[in-house]
Parts: sequence; C-alpha cells; structure tokens
Amino acid sequence: MLAGKFLVFEGIDGAGKTTQMKLLAEFLENRGLPVLCTREPGGTRVGARLRGLLLDPACHDITPRTEAFLYAADRAQHVIEKIVPALERGVTVLCDRFVYSTLAYQGWGRGMDMALLRQLNDLATGGLVPDAVVLLDLAVAEGRRRVLGQRSPDRLEGEKLAFFQRVREGYLEQAAIWPNVFRIIQADQPVHDVHRQILEALNDL
Amino acid sequence: MLAGKFLVFEGIDGAGKTTQMKLLAEFLENRGLPVLCTREPGGTRVGARLRGLLLDPACHDITPRTEAFLYAADRAQHVIEKIVPALERGVTVLCDRFVYSTLAYQGWGRGMDMALLRQLNDLATGGLVPDAVVLLDLAVAEGRRRVLGQRSPDRLEGEKLAFFQRVREGYLEQAAIWPNVFRIIQADQPVHDVHRQILEALNDL
Repeated sequence: MLAGKFLVFEGIDGAGKTTQMKLLAEFLENRGLPVLCTREPGGTRVGARLRGLLLDPACHDITPRTEAFLYAADRAQHVIEKIVPALERGVTVLCDRFVYSTLAYQGWGRGMDMALLRQLNDLATGGLVPDAVVLLDLAVAEGRRRVLGQRSPDRLEGEKLAFFQRVREGYLEQAAIWPNVFRIIQADQPVHDVHRQILEALNDL
Repeated sequence: MLAGKFLVFEGIDGAGKTTQMKLLAEFLENRGLPVLCTREPGGTRVGARLRGLLLDPACHDITPRTEAFLYAADRAQHVIEKIVPALERGVTVLCDRFVYSTLAYQGWGRGMDMALLRQLNDLATGGLVPDAVVLLDLAVAEGRRRVLGQRSPDRLEGEKLAFFQRVREGYLEQAAIWPNVFRIIQADQPVHDVHRQILEALNDL
C-alpha cells in the first residue's frame, strides 16, 4: 500500500486537463496536502527528451510500434523515478495522461494491437494502478477549436478529426471497462463548474 | 520466407564487429550480392537519436527498465523500416548487434529480469530470427585494451570489467542455448584469419 493518492487526468487535447489539474493542486495544497503535478510524456529529464522526439514534426517516420515503445520507456522512467517515490512519501500525485492515453490514441485511434499495448503498459508500470482517473469528456470539434485557437499544430495535433473521435470513444469505452477507477466529467462547462464536479467526483478519496 | 539472409554480429566492444562486417560485406559485394550493413542501436534516423540519448553520459539517470524499452523502440523501428524491407528485396543484411546484445548486456550484465527482456525482444522483432549470429568472442581485458586505446570512454564503456565479464558469459550461454544460429569465432587472431574463419562458419548459407 502506497501512502499517497495517485490521480490521473485523461481526455483529448483541449479538454482542460492542465487547467483542472492546476485548480485541484491549489485546492489540495490549500488544505496542507503535499502535491506533485506531472505528465506523460515528459515527466522526467529523460522523458522530456523523448517527448521532444515524439512531438517533433521531423519524426514523421516513427512507426506506431516504435512510438508505443517510446511511450512505454517514458512511462517506465516516470513511474520509477518520480511517481512511486512521491506516493511512498505520502504525496498526492496528479498526472496528465497515463496508460489510458496509450490505449485511446494508439489502440482506438491508430488501430494498433491492443494486446501488445496492454503488455507494454503492464511492463512499464510494473502494475501500478491509479486511485482515480478523471476523464474530461468533450466533443471533438470543441476540443480542436480550443487547441488550434491557441497555437500551431504539432505532429500529433495535426491529425484528423476522425482520429480524435476514435480516441474519445476509446476513453469512454475504457471508462465502461473500469467504472471503479474512472470518473467522467463533462468538460464543456465553465472552468469552475468543472472544478467543482471534479471535487465531488473525488470526494470519496 | 524472406529472400535475403539476415546475419547478426555480436560480441563485446573491441571484438572487431565493425571491421569484420566490413570485410564480409566486401566479400559478398565482390560476388555480386547486394548487402546492407546496419547496426543497433542507431540503424535508422529515429534510432540515431535514441542511440545519442542512450550513449550520452548526461543521461546517467536512465533506469535499466527505461533503457530496455528504448533499445526495443530502436529495434522495432529498425526491423520495420530497414531490415525486413531489405530481406524482402533479397538483400543480405549484416547487423551490428541485435536481441542477443539486450540479453547479454541488460540481462547477464545488469541482472535485469530475463522474462521482461525476452518479451520486449519478441514484441520489437515481431518474431524475426537471424539466419546466423557471428559471435566474436574475446577476453574482456583484451577488448577493453583495444577500445580504450582508441578513444575516450562513453557512458556504457565506462563500466567495470566485471560487467563485461558477465556480458561475455551471457553471449557464450546464448550460443549454447541456440547452437543452430550461433557461430562462435575466436577474435584474438589477426584480422584476416578471423575473416577467413567467419567465411568458413557461414559457408552453409
């Protein structure tokens, strides 16, 4: 048993993961709880270099299988170097994306072999499972509008709407498979309404 | 069935893999055979970036598990992008290191979980097995002398003699496990004697 709680934020780009993680972190810190905010890919020094490689438009020739291994590498480093030590110290860990992103994007999105992805996820996490996954669910068109309004598309974001539609469905199907871990939040509401609903959804923790 | 032959060179650093691959490639090309010389890590554009990361002394905080995933990523890209297409075209592929290096260095050398490494290897190669593995076997002290005489040590090469001793033993044990694939060559002989023995050992192919 680990002393800290492990909370994962999932959802398509534009769903508001970063904003909501920050609000939840402030809420917890105001109550005197130690919090670590982190993300995948790129939560460690090694991972930041992998993230650069994964999002580099010049690396368009990365095969889906290679990509899956790189996400797993990032995750293995992240779990061992950062997440588990923080949980052991009793820190609440808020993580932007985890194994569910791999399944949603590579599995549902790109049609990669789910058995391979699950195996890689299990090997990379060593079996670590979050206490809760906050799924910020949003219509794909709205997510793209939010993202592309702010900045120019990177390699992953440049992909098609149909792809993100499959990703969204992948998240919802995972929520149906693991109802005890997933908390689905409608993300098309004002920021503070979403925040309040997240607090309610995590109240039992 | 693939049209080309897939030949892997293995051995500790300093055993002469690069030199012997070059000599074999020249021999085959002089007989009109198309040859591709490649290596792991770093046989592709993506792989070259991973190789840089793996050998960078600044990346001393890479965990052994992360490292195993990165080698697998490099290998998956290499097999899909380069090795299999060449073999399909009937090209003889000479590859400097393959799955046996992972088992020898990470498994025997660092004591990582062999079952994890075998699983990663299988996932990365998609089951591709070489027609032959040329193992250039050399006493560890002689290998270090050859390597360190030429250039300054990188992150992997800076490790201890005892480590390389375990790696060497790991190679010899693998040769015992897969005697139909491995051809052991004594590498402490003049370059052209080693070359001649490699030709003899591969004669049946």
